[in-house]
Amino acid sequence: MGSSFGRLFRIATWGESHGGGLGVTIDGCPPGLPLTEADLQAELDRRRPGQSVLTTPRDEPDTCEILSGTFEGRTLGTPIAVLVRNKDARPAAYAEFSRIYRPSHADYTYQAKYGFRTWLGGGRASARETVGRVAAGAVAKKVLAHHHPVEILAWVDRVQDLQAEVEPTAVTPAQVEANPVRCPDAAVAARMAERIERARKDGDSLGGVVRCVARGVPPGLGDPVFDKLDADLAKALMSLPACKGVEVGSGFAGTYLTGATHNDPFYMEGERVRTRTNRSGGIQGGISNGEDILVAAAFKPTATIGTPQETVDEDGNAVTLKAKGRHDPCVLPRAVPIVEAMVALVLCDHLLRQRAQRGWED
Amino acid sequence: MGSSFGRLFRIATWGESHGGGLGVTIDGCPPGLPLTEADLQAELDRRRPGQSVLTTPRDEPDTCEILSGTFEGRTLGTPIAVLVRNKDARPAAYAEFSRIYRPSHADYTYQAKYGFRTWLGGGRASARETVGRVAAGAVAKKVLAHHHPVEILAWVDRVQDLQAEVEPTAVTPAQVEANPVRCPDAAVAARMAERIERARKDGDSLGGVVRCVARGVPPGLGDPVFDKLDADLAKALMSLPACKGVEVGSGFAGTYLTGATHNDPFYMEGERVRTRTNRSGGIQGGISNGEDILVAAAFKPTATIGTPQETVDEDGNAVTLKAKGRHDPCVLPRAVPIVEAMVALVLCDHLLRQRAQRGWED
Amino acid sequence: MGSSFGRLFRIATWGESHGGGLGVTIDGCPPGLPLTEADLQAELDRRRPGQSVLTTPRDEPDTCEILSGTFEGRTLGTPIAVLVRNKDARPAAYAEFSRIYRPSHADYTYQAKYGFRTWLGGGRASARETVGRVAAGAVAKKVLAHHHPVEILAWVDRVQDLQAEVEPTAVTPAQVEANPVRCPDAAVAARMAERIERARKDGDSLGGVVRCVARGVPPGLGDPVFDKLDADLAKALMSLPACKGVEVGSGFAGTYLTGATHNDPFYMEGERVRTRTNRSGGIQGGISNGEDILVAAAFKPTATIGTPQETVDEDGNAVTLKAKGRHDPCVLPRAVPIVEAMVALVLCDHLLRQRAQRGWED
Amino acid sequence: MGSSFGRLFRIATWGESHGGGLGVTIDGCPPGLPLTEADLQAELDRRRPGQSVLTTPRDEPDTCEILSGTFEGRTLGTPIAVLVRNKDARPAAYAEFSRIYRPSHADYTYQAKYGFRTWLGGGRASARETVGRVAAGAVAKKVLAHHHPVEILAWVDRVQDLQAEVEPTAVTPAQVEANPVRCPDAAVAARMAERIERARKDGDSLGGVVRCVARGVPPGLGDPVFDKLDADLAKALMSLPACKGVEVGSGFAGTYLTGATHNDPFYMEGERVRTRTNRSGGIQGGISNGEDILVAAAFKPTATIGTPQETVDEDGNAVTLKAKGRHDPCVLPRAVPIVEAMVALVLCDHLLRQRAQRGWED
Repeated sequence: MGSSFGRLFRIATWGESHGGGLGVTIDGCPPGLPLTEADLQAELDRRRPGQSVLTTPRDEPDTCEILSGTFEGRTLGTPIAVLVRNKDARPAAYAEFSRIYRPSHADYTYQAKYGFRTWLGGGRASARETVGRVAAGAVAKKVLAHHHPVEILAWVDRVQDLQAEVEPTAVTPAQVEANPVRCPDAAVAARMAERIERARKDGDSLGGVVRCVARGVPPGLGDPVFDKLDADLAKALMSLPACKGVEVGSGFAGTYLTGATHNDPFYMEGERVRTRTNRSGGIQGGISNGEDILVAAAFKPTATIGTPQETVDEDGNAVTLKAKGRHDPCVLPRAVPIVEAMVALVLCDHLLRQRAQRGWED
Repeated sequence: MGSSFGRLFRIATWGESHGGGLGVTIDGCPPGLPLTEADLQAELDRRRPGQSVLTTPRDEPDTCEILSGTFEGRTLGTPIAVLVRNKDARPAAYAEFSRIYRPSHADYTYQAKYGFRTWLGGGRASARETVGRVAAGAVAKKVLAHHHPVEILAWVDRVQDLQAEVEPTAVTPAQVEANPVRCPDAAVAARMAERIERARKDGDSLGGVVRCVARGVPPGLGDPVFDKLDADLAKALMSLPACKGVEVGSGFAGTYLTGATHNDPFYMEGERVRTRTNRSGGIQGGISNGEDILVAAAFKPTATIGTPQETVDEDGNAVTLKAKGRHDPCVLPRAVPIVEAMVALVLCDHLLRQRAQRGWED
Repeated sequence: MGSSFGRLFRIATWGESHGGGLGVTIDGCPPGLPLTEADLQAELDRRRPGQSVLTTPRDEPDTCEILSGTFEGRTLGTPIAVLVRNKDARPAAYAEFSRIYRPSHADYTYQAKYGFRTWLGGGRASARETVGRVAAGAVAKKVLAHHHPVEILAWVDRVQDLQAEVEPTAVTPAQVEANPVRCPDAAVAARMAERIERARKDGDSLGGVVRCVARGVPPGLGDPVFDKLDADLAKALMSLPACKGVEVGSGFAGTYLTGATHNDPFYMEGERVRTRTNRSGGIQGGISNGEDILVAAAFKPTATIGTPQETVDEDGNAVTLKAKGRHDPCVLPRAVPIVEAMVALVLCDHLLRQRAQRGWED
Repeated sequence: MGSSFGRLFRIATWGESHGGGLGVTIDGCPPGLPLTEADLQAELDRRRPGQSVLTTPRDEPDTCEILSGTFEGRTLGTPIAVLVRNKDARPAAYAEFSRIYRPSHADYTYQAKYGFRTWLGGGRASARETVGRVAAGAVAKKVLAHHHPVEILAWVDRVQDLQAEVEPTAVTPAQVEANPVRCPDAAVAARMAERIERARKDGDSLGGVVRCVARGVPPGLGDPVFDKLDADLAKALMSLPACKGVEVGSGFAGTYLTGATHNDPFYMEGERVRTRTNRSGGIQGGISNGEDILVAAAFKPTATIGTPQETVDEDGNAVTLKAKGRHDPCVLPRAVPIVEAMVALVLCDHLLRQRAQRGWED
């Protein structure tokens, strides 16, 4: 019962890795917004498997169909249903370990929770589930951009110990899309690609960190005390497959400073209240302050690896697993559009919430 | 509109730092559970200000009253309302900077969002707001303990760069409560206390990391794909004042490993499926697997400091702020019971959710 | 877990008939609105027991205290907590039938659901619970009135078979408050009062119908397809103690007409789209059309009566109950402000929802 | 933003009369339940247009596809997505009155709310939207039946002034399905059919009352004080197109009785607490008491009629509308399975809620 997200811009995703398809219903999109499949497809293409040598060879076009909620190319204000069919499912590849719990996968926990599961490609726990998130995120980006010059941009900041040098305030979409790793530091990106390729050949996998900036977010978004903007961002990111950590602004590193060096001094830039530094990551007291929103997400090394692993099966027998199935040796390049989608969903929801509350002082 | 949390064990907190009091209403607590004010008071006493030399001198007994939802010492299944009065408010201390935006506080963002704010001690953005969370967390702990031997234990793991050596599987409540820092590594705790005292004298402040373990959690808690157990924990912790980062299991450190070294191999311990390592932090695919739940939260240095800071006021004038008001030079010792409360609230909510879903296979 | 209501103007009530008090927390009230206890008290006084010879003799002043969410007489945008203490509880009166299920009361169903209940005055099932609704409704009325000339007015339309003649478009608050029955048809009101007095003397009770009009509601409120304005009104009214039926517009009577005679023709009144008749009750397709909102609620005869009744106790013994306890022989006069409160809460919630969605066409 | 319903058994519908199709996503269905398209199709066939001479001639097979949430014929516990394509849409029929507000339709209110609408067959306001409700209701019926012998049965009780004689405790599905009116009183059913046929020929339309009984519902379902079982049923029914009134148990008629004659005396039937009469309609204090749940819904005469009507267009011009488009001269026969679906959805949601709360006394 946890497949919906958002309060006013509310999405509900559905679908398994090897079922009839995947999709999302978006309830709460404002009416009158220009929207066609092409808007969604652009983001889905960034997420889809088989897009580069670094990703899984599963070849899914992930072509989407908008089933409802638009008329003559504009949104109606009614639910927008989006459908993506599975095209390149290969159930046979999973048959031989259908009763084996793959280490650090969700096989055992789904069995424990539901008492019944599909062994086809991870079912609902597959990262294919994020198709619906990305489609919805594309709509959220359009809503945000309608009234505010919001730009949301994520990139691969670190793969294992290969740390990129990136200036969040300056990085551009073109820099991110310039290489298949989606790391705007071209030199480090090349080393990351090499490292990922080697991991694939070794039957191993890698993790790292994706960072994301949201520029142009107006002050005032976020609802204390539980639905703080940073709290909702943390949930959004931590709900992604393989995510194990989330930071906002100065994050863990900021805890080594003292208050005198960590605080962000205010100053005026014309009529606008600004901060000289941005250790707050654009959020203070759970509410946006108009500075760049800065978040980071840690993704663990892909759980599927080619080397043999000790584990057990559903009957409690000790077995050695040598996994097949197609997978990404490093999820980070494809996680970039997914992280952007989640940030967009949170910001869009809070923009609508803020519209409900503001303006009463007039 | 963001002051409620949880879906089945649902709490709604209210109250400002200097108003008529603080409190919480808990809707969804199962009936028949023994519950009195003493259960709540024990946890509130761990959170209350003035409990040690390391905390703010504001002296609040934080005595609670249960206004509804119990009868003859047991819960009725109806909403439990808890009230704590403010006793030691000192509004005058805030008057002189009533129109000044304190750096890295929520003064400016509340003004930007609501257009109207109280300047008394941070209002709703004050950490006093967590009184309601701790009271509700005490009830959640009792619900959890009713059917499962769940133990939730947090501690101060690092203050600035002073890192404790703590074994999460072995640490005890007595070790945590043995010193006012709430760090179970006594030697490091002493240095932390010293460091905090020095920061206070210097008019400066410190941050660090609180870790928390939840033992005895049954497998099967968590609702993919958005309400994953780790996602809800991340939101719960990131919603705390001063929190800037959250980790589950191996967190950011785990991203330096490869899949072959990071995966947790399964084995059988009698009838029970176990993992040999616990980099998953007790959660796989967003669902508990029966191992210890492991989370960490980064808290920034307290925003209130005694040294002068550059900032602006509501009229856009540049001003120098020299803050008064009573505050903690380091929030971590008092954050310990609050972190425990948030973890308890999430687990309790998911325990009730799991009860609604399971058992249909019979 | 069902003690909250509304999505953006969200209230959570708590309290039992004989506990520490009753109250409500309102989350989502816009900031900057003038609000003091006096605003709430005016409505609470209309609801309180002991206000006239027609009501229960239980004498509760129902004095309210606003504990949070306001500062210097204006709302902060943070949760508004309201507390009303119980003053005239008489537990002893209920002791002798503490284990008896009173017919058509909630004694048995609370026992069946929760396995544990308070026998003091009906506990949470008491109509005293509506104190919180009325306090919140008073705030909702103020929010509505802030931007729209909304007037919500209910009255007793029928007691048993005594039917008043009332023109919904013309009835005034003064007419309603002119007599203790709250029936604006003075002649019928007198007969109603007499009938209610006789029922009390006979140890019997009466039911009837309360009608309500909401004038000045702007077009566009209501969220198809489930949160239609009429659907939310129906839930709001049916959730009241003793309510057994709800109508919108032409209601049950309208089903005797044909489409040709039932439809409301549109016409223009200046720039405004109007309907010549109002069988729709101001709602079409679940959305307000700018005409008067018209609803009605049927209230059964009070379950508490003085004459002996056959029933059973918790042990399954057949017993004869001769109830004591103070009660209203007819709930309708006091239901009037409660019905208004519920209508206000629904309209206010949908006004905020509409603010979140509209205006994107600009 | 109002297209979802339910808290634990949560459905989200989407789709317009003339778009890419209609559907529903069900989140919260317990795992392991046998479920195939055939289960849904049986109910969809009872709702589909063109099934008899009494209904609209629009010929939609309404064949459904389950896209997710099942594996090998059993539910996974993950969201169940259901898709029904529109096959017999005829947009051209609506072109000529695309800018005209049809009286007592939702054309004007959708325009007022969203500022943009589809003029094709009513769009989202079309009764075709109920396809998703009926599909979800079929799943809810199966969940209910899994553990309790719940039977939900609705019928046409009155068309205009033609009142059937039906005993709610005894009526059978076969009796309801024995004629196209779905009225178990065969003699009155024949007169209803005749009356409906005449209305169609006259270009007019009829309304009436559908009644519904739910047998075998265990005691304890319903969540005071807002999510009372009767309150949720009222919302569920009032959210149906054309519904103008709802009753539970004795409803409006019960208000003519006095307490002494209206109350339901308790007695023991073996171990079971029963009531001798059932004016409560199986619900007391908002919680089921184990007796038959009895509800009724008033449906107005169909707004689409063939005779000319005065109205206005989007530009404010007075126009005379002579509607075309295919429609039902009386919606009641097809409303029967829809009412059953809504009752099933409410009961199923509350059954899951009750499972989360009960059993703590063990």
